[in-house]
Amino acid sequence: MDFNPVEIIKKKRDGGTLTEEEIRFFISSFLTGQIPEYQMSALLMAIHFNGLNDDETLSFVRSYVQSGKTVDLSFLNKPKIDKHSTGGVGDKTSLILAPLLACFDVVVPMMSGRGLGHTGGTLDKLESITGFRIDLSVTEFVDILKKLNVCMIGQTDDLAPADKKIYALRDVTATVDDIGLITASILSKKIAEGAEGIVYDVKMGSGANLPDTEKSRELAYKLLETTRKFGKEACALLTDMNEPLGYAIGNWLEVEECISIMDPSAKKSHLSEDLIQITLTLGGAMLMLAKKCEGIQEGFQMCEKKLFGGECFAKFVNLVELQGGNVELMIHQETYPAASSRSEIRAFDDGFISLLDALAFGTAAVNLGSGRMKADDKIDNSAGILLSKKVGDRVNKGETICELFAETENRLRTAESILNKGIGISKTGSQLKDKIIQVID
Amino acid sequence: MDFNPVEIIKKKRDGGTLTEEEIRFFISSFLTGQIPEYQMSALLMAIHFNGLNDDETLSFVRSYVQSGKTVDLSFLNKPKIDKHSTGGVGDKTSLILAPLLACFDVVVPMMSGRGLGHTGGTLDKLESITGFRIDLSVTEFVDILKKLNVCMIGQTDDLAPADKKIYALRDVTATVDDIGLITASILSKKIAEGAEGIVYDVKMGSGANLPDTEKSRELAYKLLETTRKFGKEACALLTDMNEPLGYAIGNWLEVEECISIMDPSAKKSHLSEDLIQITLTLGGAMLMLAKKCEGIQEGFQMCEKKLFGGECFAKFVNLVELQGGNVELMIHQETYPAASSRSEIRAFDDGFISLLDALAFGTAAVNLGSGRMKADDKIDNSAGILLSKKVGDRVNKGETICELFAETENRLRTAESILNKGIGISKTGSQLKDKIIQVID
Repeated sequence: MDFNPVEIIKKKRDGGTLTEEEIRFFISSFLTGQIPEYQMSALLMAIHFNGLNDDETLSFVRSYVQSGKTVDLSFLNKPKIDKHSTGGVGDKTSLILAPLLACFDVVVPMMSGRGLGHTGGTLDKLESITGFRIDLSVTEFVDILKKLNVCMIGQTDDLAPADKKIYALRDVTATVDDIGLITASILSKKIAEGAEGIVYDVKMGSGANLPDTEKSRELAYKLLETTRKFGKEACALLTDMNEPLGYAIGNWLEVEECISIMDPSAKKSHLSEDLIQITLTLGGAMLMLAKKCEGIQEGFQMCEKKLFGGECFAKFVNLVELQGGNVELMIHQETYPAASSRSEIRAFDDGFISLLDALAFGTAAVNLGSGRMKADDKIDNSAGILLSKKVGDRVNKGETICELFAETENRLRTAESILNKGIGISKTGSQLKDKIIQVID
Repeated sequence: MDFNPVEIIKKKRDGGTLTEEEIRFFISSFLTGQIPEYQMSALLMAIHFNGLNDDETLSFVRSYVQSGKTVDLSFLNKPKIDKHSTGGVGDKTSLILAPLLACFDVVVPMMSGRGLGHTGGTLDKLESITGFRIDLSVTEFVDILKKLNVCMIGQTDDLAPADKKIYALRDVTATVDDIGLITASILSKKIAEGAEGIVYDVKMGSGANLPDTEKSRELAYKLLETTRKFGKEACALLTDMNEPLGYAIGNWLEVEECISIMDPSAKKSHLSEDLIQITLTLGGAMLMLAKKCEGIQEGFQMCEKKLFGGECFAKFVNLVELQGGNVELMIHQETYPAASSRSEIRAFDDGFISLLDALAFGTAAVNLGSGRMKADDKIDNSAGILLSKKVGDRVNKGETICELFAETENRLRTAESILNKGIGISKTGSQLKDKIIQVID
């Protein structure tokens, strides 16, 4: 059926509800180029103001999914569970969760994204492992899933291509914040990749992509509701993103932190308590959706055993090998090329760390070279930040709070000046809040 | 100075006020192509929702004017007054007003537009006069103004080109209705053409471009206020556009109606009372702005004399001649090529005409061929509608209400079916309302 694009924009602009046919027409015509970018961006801005109701959101998801192929994993007689994080700083849980769940005979068909703004991306982290290929064909993806239960790739051009094209436009037209559009973008990829259950890690706080706390909560409920309407299992965690997760920020540094947790023989410089707690809770939720346990707490304990017993690490090494990565690096991280410049930020006073602002650390890390300021910027895999302290820790004046790594001294200076306002020390310690704010299931 | 376009869009989206520098940057970068259409349309939609305040509107006007050349008429030691109508059906007052005011030694540098949607455009009407050139250079424009005090042209690429480019984008992104953007578009052209005083004819009712009555009133006030902030004289009339103005709708038919009013020797088939009343009131207001009289009523009477005395018609014939039009047609309208197909709509009952819906008549006329449905449609100058009755007139069953003219029988059938719901007859006559709803000066 043929519609008038201007009438569709006007309808949404005036607060009307778009039909499934109108949404499908608009999205498919945009993908073929019959509807130009300027009409799509006008519609997106109208959606920003008037929102998408539940039915419209479903239509967006379906239109995104129908715009490309879908992976058929039905021949695998195992639960297929994925996890999605709305993005944070030092958020590396996927690197551990994907192989961990695979150890329980749960299939994890994980399609991830790149770093965005001040937040990191799983794809960039994986690619810091020399040789690791994230651009597999659907056939290769399915093959590795059959062998290992897990495979980690990027969004291919085949799956949900409309989402990819529209996302790129949202990014440059200030229309990334709408709950309905975010939900459609996330869920369509999960459906296309073949997941049957999804655990959402919705970040809240200064380092989250949606800084507004109420909007994050709204997003969590919308994600759950919409996912269930597609007959999929879902669960959401609201987690704190006011300070970076774990101790490392930066692609290879984060891989190293994950290895140090997964490899039982590794020397641990710090115990990444917050990272481990969130990872195991997410893992427990994934096991629950896979019907491998009764509740998250039971799943948490099951995950704990496999993680610290070394099974998870063995699976991770297998995954790296099958996806073309250098396995030697998994054992000998000291052979990885080091950053040429390094500096430290030291405590300016005695006391307790009261602030490690996630937004400041994320922005500083991008400026060190671990992320992109423009779409075609090259990433420096060795760049980043290693914390020595976390919020609540006692420090003495002059003690190292964090180390910075980059290619040039200039980058170090820029990052230091960004971090200046992102670190706080107080005279008295205070009660630490739980990193898991709420579990919605 | 360089700004980030996404940040500017976000600022307006979130209800902020854009600075003159931000607006100028966005508009000039759009004109050079550095800001793509999809970012401009996102900004326009954000403006639709959050509006432009007075200062922002002024910045838009200035940026539009500065995007091109301006006509310098300061060497003409006479008042320069123009009129602008927001557009209606059968609205042909400009054809009479321009030569009429020129008779008083008032310079009328009129830059008009084409038909838009169901409403007609002065340019299309002028071009129905064989040979009439509306695409004059600025030099030719000024030359004719020097000789005649009046010249009527289209928007050139030189004057306010940013408005032209942005208007085209608004038209296809459902962002034409914002009061601030409309004001900037209208006023920038008037300033660029060199007008010192402007009378606004803001239409209200079914056939107006802004159907919402309150919005029309708001537009009138915004036009007045913004015009005066530029140190120009202004006055606005709110006029009724629920039924077509006068008896003719369609380009050449409307020129003929104007000639029949202006030419004292012409045979009058009808006395176009509503058209004459509005034209003379607008003329009175223009004379008042030109300081040729004390008030509109005095100006009205002065205009009446020149219009019916034949001076105005002589000036019109001069204008047609200097702009390349066929002067013979001014006397011998019977030589104009007639439409090949013709039909009539007759009264289905005895009574009084209670409805001649301007929107229906405008839409029907476009379908007959007098307007464009797509930008590149060719116009049929002979097509249109001639009313025999006006609202309030007594009719007998079977009497002609209007005649339709087109190239094909098909077009007649389409127009007839549109007019079906646009004509009403009631058993009792009712008090006619004044066509001039309000004068704001």
